[in-house]
Amino acid sequence: MTTEIQITAMMENWAKAVREKDMEGIMAWHHADMVMYDVPPPFQSVGIAAYRGTWDLFYSCEQEKDGFRIVDLHVVAGEEVAFSYAAMKCVYFDKDGEKIDLDFRLTTGFKKISGQWWFVHEHHSVPAY
Amino acid sequence: MTTEIQITAMMENWAKAVREKDMEGIMAWHHADMVMYDVPPPFQSVGIAAYRGTWDLFYSCEQEKDGFRIVDLHVVAGEEVAFSYAAMKCVYFDKDGEKIDLDFRLTTGFKKISGQWWFVHEHHSVPAY
Repeated sequence: MTTEIQITAMMENWAKAVREKDMEGIMAWHHADMVMYDVPPPFQSVGIAAYRGTWDLFYSCEQEKDGFRIVDLHVVAGEEVAFSYAAMKCVYFDKDGEKIDLDFRLTTGFKKISGQWWFVHEHHSVPAY
Repeated sequence: MTTEIQITAMMENWAKAVREKDMEGIMAWHHADMVMYDVPPPFQSVGIAAYRGTWDLFYSCEQEKDGFRIVDLHVVAGEEVAFSYAAMKCVYFDKDGEKIDLDFRLTTGFKKISGQWWFVHEHHSVPAY
């Protein structure tokens, strides 16, 4: 299995876990020291506990079934470091029950430690209007 | 020179070129097929010509001298692939002449091709409020 296929599988497994509200799956290979830049504030979330907290905010809105999807994934992988960037889709319902169809960008950084790939960075965003 | 130091130098040289409005310096090591996610729209800019166009928009606002700075850079580097993420600062004047002090996040992806590191991805953003 090439590294690109491994990273693609990690991204798809992670997105599937998000759809299934499977927190253990979401965080399965996220490093303790990871840093996340998310769509909503705060500016950054440092460490795995802060990362977990971002999903509490995410799930405070009702998600459409299968609404969280990787649309277009590009992987750049070496032997010990890799990153990916992707157009993403998230369909959810806001607090007034209105359906929101959100296109966002996601860049993810990976590091191989003792033979295992880990997520060490996520950067989610939308353009600022 | 370690790879981390090489990538740090590339980031600092790039930021210096931005401050000096040196387009050749900004684009010196940017790959033809690079993909950028920027703070303002569009959703993505694909290829070096589109990347160059994002700087026309950037320089349409007056920049404060030395206002574009890398505040806190983290580099994760392998032999052939690397990425960095950073808290960034940009101080500029909007169309009404008001001084704007913008904190933003920047993730950058690099690939080594024939012994030379290239920028292949940039993701700039602010949290969505």
